[in-house]
Amino acid sequence: MRHVVIRNIYRASEKTIDALRAAGTATVHEAMGRIGLMKPYMRPIWPGAAAAGSAVTVLAHPGDNWMIHVGIEQCKPGDILVVAVTADNTDGMFGELLGTSMQSRGAAGLVIDAGCRDVAPLKEMGFPVWSRAISAKGTVKAVLGNVNLPVVCAGVAVHAGDVVVADDDGVVIVPRADADAVAQASAQRLAKEGRSRERLKAGELSLDINAMRPQLEKLGLIYVDTLEQAAKLDAGR
Amino acid sequence: MRHVVIRNIYRASEKTIDALRAAGTATVHEAMGRIGLMKPYMRPIWPGAAAAGSAVTVLAHPGDNWMIHVGIEQCKPGDILVVAVTADNTDGMFGELLGTSMQSRGAAGLVIDAGCRDVAPLKEMGFPVWSRAISAKGTVKAVLGNVNLPVVCAGVAVHAGDVVVADDDGVVIVPRADADAVAQASAQRLAKEGRSRERLKAGELSLDINAMRPQLEKLGLIYVDTLEQAAKLDAGR
Amino acid sequence: MRHVVIRNIYRASEKTIDALRAAGTATVHEAMGRIGLMKPYMRPIWPGAAAAGSAVTVLAHPGDNWMIHVGIEQCKPGDILVVAVTADNTDGMFGELLGTSMQSRGAAGLVIDAGCRDVAPLKEMGFPVWSRAISAKGTVKAVLGNVNLPVVCAGVAVHAGDVVVADDDGVVIVPRADADAVAQASAQRLAKEGRSRERLKAGELSLDINAMRPQLEKLGLIYVDTLEQAAKLDAGR
Amino acid sequence: MRHVVIRNIYRASEKTIDALRAAGTATVHEAMGRIGLMKPYMRPIWPGAAAAGSAVTVLAHPGDNWMIHVGIEQCKPGDILVVAVTADNTDGMFGELLGTSMQSRGAAGLVIDAGCRDVAPLKEMGFPVWSRAISAKGTVKAVLGNVNLPVVCAGVAVHAGDVVVADDDGVVIVPRADADAVAQASAQRLAKEGRSRERLKAGELSLDINAMRPQLEKLGLIYVDTLEQAAKLDAGR
Amino acid sequence: MRHVVIRNIYRASEKTIDALRAAGTATVHEAMGRIGLMKPYMRPIWPGAAAAGSAVTVLAHPGDNWMIHVGIEQCKPGDILVVAVTADNTDGMFGELLGTSMQSRGAAGLVIDAGCRDVAPLKEMGFPVWSRAISAKGTVKAVLGNVNLPVVCAGVAVHAGDVVVADDDGVVIVPRADADAVAQASAQRLAKEGRSRERLKAGELSLDINAMRPQLEKLGLIYVDTLEQAAKLDAGR
Amino acid sequence: MRHVVIRNIYRASEKTIDALRAAGTATVHEAMGRIGLMKPYMRPIWPGAAAAGSAVTVLAHPGDNWMIHVGIEQCKPGDILVVAVTADNTDGMFGELLGTSMQSRGAAGLVIDAGCRDVAPLKEMGFPVWSRAISAKGTVKAVLGNVNLPVVCAGVAVHAGDVVVADDDGVVIVPRADADAVAQASAQRLAKEGRSRERLKAGELSLDINAMRPQLEKLGLIYVDTLEQAAKLDAGR
Repeated sequence: MRHVVIRNIYRASEKTIDALRAAGTATVHEAMGRIGLMKPYMRPIWPGAAAAGSAVTVLAHPGDNWMIHVGIEQCKPGDILVVAVTADNTDGMFGELLGTSMQSRGAAGLVIDAGCRDVAPLKEMGFPVWSRAISAKGTVKAVLGNVNLPVVCAGVAVHAGDVVVADDDGVVIVPRADADAVAQASAQRLAKEGRSRERLKAGELSLDINAMRPQLEKLGLIYVDTLEQAAKLDAGR
Repeated sequence: MRHVVIRNIYRASEKTIDALRAAGTATVHEAMGRIGLMKPYMRPIWPGAAAAGSAVTVLAHPGDNWMIHVGIEQCKPGDILVVAVTADNTDGMFGELLGTSMQSRGAAGLVIDAGCRDVAPLKEMGFPVWSRAISAKGTVKAVLGNVNLPVVCAGVAVHAGDVVVADDDGVVIVPRADADAVAQASAQRLAKEGRSRERLKAGELSLDINAMRPQLEKLGLIYVDTLEQAAKLDAGR
Repeated sequence: MRHVVIRNIYRASEKTIDALRAAGTATVHEAMGRIGLMKPYMRPIWPGAAAAGSAVTVLAHPGDNWMIHVGIEQCKPGDILVVAVTADNTDGMFGELLGTSMQSRGAAGLVIDAGCRDVAPLKEMGFPVWSRAISAKGTVKAVLGNVNLPVVCAGVAVHAGDVVVADDDGVVIVPRADADAVAQASAQRLAKEGRSRERLKAGELSLDINAMRPQLEKLGLIYVDTLEQAAKLDAGR
Repeated sequence: MRHVVIRNIYRASEKTIDALRAAGTATVHEAMGRIGLMKPYMRPIWPGAAAAGSAVTVLAHPGDNWMIHVGIEQCKPGDILVVAVTADNTDGMFGELLGTSMQSRGAAGLVIDAGCRDVAPLKEMGFPVWSRAISAKGTVKAVLGNVNLPVVCAGVAVHAGDVVVADDDGVVIVPRADADAVAQASAQRLAKEGRSRERLKAGELSLDINAMRPQLEKLGLIYVDTLEQAAKLDAGR
Repeated sequence: MRHVVIRNIYRASEKTIDALRAAGTATVHEAMGRIGLMKPYMRPIWPGAAAAGSAVTVLAHPGDNWMIHVGIEQCKPGDILVVAVTADNTDGMFGELLGTSMQSRGAAGLVIDAGCRDVAPLKEMGFPVWSRAISAKGTVKAVLGNVNLPVVCAGVAVHAGDVVVADDDGVVIVPRADADAVAQASAQRLAKEGRSRERLKAGELSLDINAMRPQLEKLGLIYVDTLEQAAKLDAGR
Repeated sequence: MRHVVIRNIYRASEKTIDALRAAGTATVHEAMGRIGLMKPYMRPIWPGAAAAGSAVTVLAHPGDNWMIHVGIEQCKPGDILVVAVTADNTDGMFGELLGTSMQSRGAAGLVIDAGCRDVAPLKEMGFPVWSRAISAKGTVKAVLGNVNLPVVCAGVAVHAGDVVVADDDGVVIVPRADADAVAQASAQRLAKEGRSRERLKAGELSLDINAMRPQLEKLGLIYVDTLEQAAKLDAGR
């Protein structure tokens, strides 16, 4: 592992990040072609948490939060620290003091593939964290990792400067180069969903709105009135 | 897998369903003889969710929510859609748009052995969902399953028309044929628990209320004053 | 397994327990030298739960809650019942009726390496429970265990009379003999953290507050401006 | 739970069972339309184990193997005992003595959604077991269950007399009524696979043998020479 | 955590250890009253591994194997190193080089609540290891733990000098003070099992050998001939 | 997700791949600086499997193995197919027929973050597979993915042409650009380990070979003779 901290990273524009935040994880993930979503074990430590920002990446050793201290210095206002660990670990690498530090510097949140502690004060402060676990387990400061090199966090490759979008549904990563296009596609998707929502509210079925019936029939879906009729179909195979 | 949709199913009476809802999952499960409970990984997506209704069953392919679209059409007001998947899967097969559709048709809730997304808007709408996971992961519409055939969902065999009872403690399935008897047994159980509660509140012990002491003694439970005395018992074995 | 109930146990002083409660799990765990913390799967059944008290220990059989009934009798006001099970089990061994019994006797809470049910009424009552799972699964009363013998609960050895500290961050066990020293160390730690918090709020970095930079440099941490420069470092290895 | 033992069950013919055993789990599962397979955590306790037979079903309590003793009496030569448990449990409910008993009565194997112990002697005896875990954990004999009522075992509904097919790839359940048809479909499938195998061995691709290319193209699969060309495609979206 | 190495520990006699090894984990665990068994995730890295010896205990930090190096020096011929970790971790803390070191000093095996690597050479050397995982993940040497203080390993409290018994069925810990009594009880149990085995081989049922039928009947077990009769029983409740 | 197949990829030299294969996963992983290792749930389907080759990458949908058919065509002799899935899935996406196809074309093995079936015939054929699970679960051919785009497989970012090294200890990925340097560093490491092995065999301790004692002492490790002395140290804190 290279023990390097990279100071300068490229970020998406504030406007793009705002648009992605407004769209939310599910829409952004769909607009990307259903990729970029972290494993579903990544959960907000308090309900209603939502954030978007540029990724400052950290690679840490299990049970060792030293590189988070190093990474915080590289955060600009609005950034989100994304912490990957070299092996599965649930230790409480992050808590209220580090949250205070990040908040005082304007950082927008933390995404960590490990544990978080002090969830009550962090909630009170309104500092959003997405983690794999909640754990009071203390950590050491003994081993180096790196900051702003590419990492894999909760199943997704993250590069420094990628856009992180996180809310109650999870965490999605948008590569910086794709961020504008994804923001645009998300907006289109939201508009289309708005139209569908109205029709669904009025009682129409998605089977009809999206014209699914012919394809279902073509693939062989059969409607019968009773379980007994279904059983007869089987017998006639 | 048979690709069939069964349109007509038998349902328990509204009165019976109401009684089961009022009793709640723990009481209903006990009244059935401690069976019918789904695995405890099935959790409400928002605290306080509670529902009961007749099961409309769906069998879907992992990563494919097409049959949910098909199943919603078969829901009558008050029904609960129960979605089983042919293999363990946490993808976000259900979200706000499908929830809007179900709610507009009067369905009472969703039970899904997979993931759910859009938890914030679903909570705001008051649409209750019990799922194995929360995940924004998008799904496809490519492969057929079936609707209203018997399924196994989260460890329990479910037949269309069975009564689903779900709340903060989980999800329990009552076979339709047993529903009246279970509702009655639940009511009796509630009455008995009410009497116990008063005595427990007054400081009596369940050891005495339920006369457990003689049987404990018979099976060999020994009371001693100190750890040292317990150690001596061992030495004397 | 010895089928014994020990009636007399030694407890820490109320003042010490109060001090540990005020410090909270994360601080207490750190003050002990980062030991004594239960596995992070032990979670409060409602957010905001917090308690501290002397442990009354129970060893139970999977799917059998009989010994909890026995253990409750041994609880004095302020005590916390700590339930270990002889094998991994998520059954709902504890619910509202037992919670009513414990509360009427002044017990401060329950820690159980198994399941809990009736979470809605327990929350309403304000009775705090930390458990491995939430499950309505009913249990039997058939097999003996023991009360107030040493147990291992969720990865931690617990002796009757040890101090249990539990909150949103998990559960930590303080051996009774160490309780005073740990309470004192916790208070010192809180004071020190308070000073750090002020400086972090003012925008100082932990790198500087704790003088980490020289050691990071000594171990070989290198700062570069760009990813390209980092790649060159590698090439030069 | 009903505490009943059913003595008489209907079994598939020996010839049908032999045909299903010869086909193996993967082929049988495919021939059924990709259903009936137990969760993949069900593994043979020794490699190379393979068996097929009629299911004698048992429902047991976690940590209690009493009903296995009861169930063995109901096994005829060639039968396979299928043990479901009312909650997730890994205790060692079955070992060498019970294996000796089953083998002396001609039973063909055991499928248990819990733990097994004595794996070394069971392997030496050649008695095949599929289990969720290997564990020496001892169990009690205290609580009743039932024998030959329908159960759900490792995610599959099993009725007494259904055909169990098990080998290195897992365990599949064939409903008795479907057994002949599935055996026939399995044989056809084996024949077809034999023809494919020869062509694949000769270097042909499944893309050509099964004429997949037109459909892949229709759905939009694009072949390019380099990663750079793929990137250009994206830019042109 | 105290950073201490204790040099002198008390061990059980060789004769007692031999007797426990001969009995095996399942019998020893039963003879102790069904306690002392580690979690079933502890598995031998090669089938057929079996060992017994006195525990030399190590407490290590996740991802850091330094204290294993320290612990090996404290092993006498025949000892088994028991490694606990302060948090769940699967890193490959132990491999062929450390195995060579232990073997050259006469140690009998390793039990580690973390990962092991180099399984092929360790198998070839015949050095037995029981671990939570197999993983090539490398570890650091940065943080102190302790040696020969009491630990909790895979759910069991272990004191230095306790007897470790491990084989294909798992790992069981016998407190040193109980070792003689457990060895004796194990021998008695083996003798009794030998008598049962002969009767079971001859086709007798455990229901009769252990006279279970009266108790089963007393608790309400009912034998009926068919599923239809069982259904009628329910209707008559 | 882009539905693209890239035909031309760059591969490491045969000589480099041979050197990495000879070094094995643990040594290669260490030589890279302890990165590049897949999650430890990736296991060979038969013991003793070992392979190294250039990665041909596949991204597939859960429960859908179509893209494996597409990917096989892109394999050159010696290549290893690396299959990532867009969500956690254990279905049996690969079996004997696809193994026959790969073997007939000279491919060296398969790494799949999903399930594998037909483990008995694959073992007999000597075709090595590393998978997350063994499962007979059948899959469909309905949804497109891509071939030879970058993927994340079992926690590691893999680019087509990277070198895959796999054996009993797991799977490690070496970026193509680093392969020569890593092969060289691995050889040096093997030589050094050989020297250590001889000294360890002769009874020397790693504490002395690697001169660890001064640093242990400096960090505060204390040797005492008895547990009682350790307790006194605590009291004196």
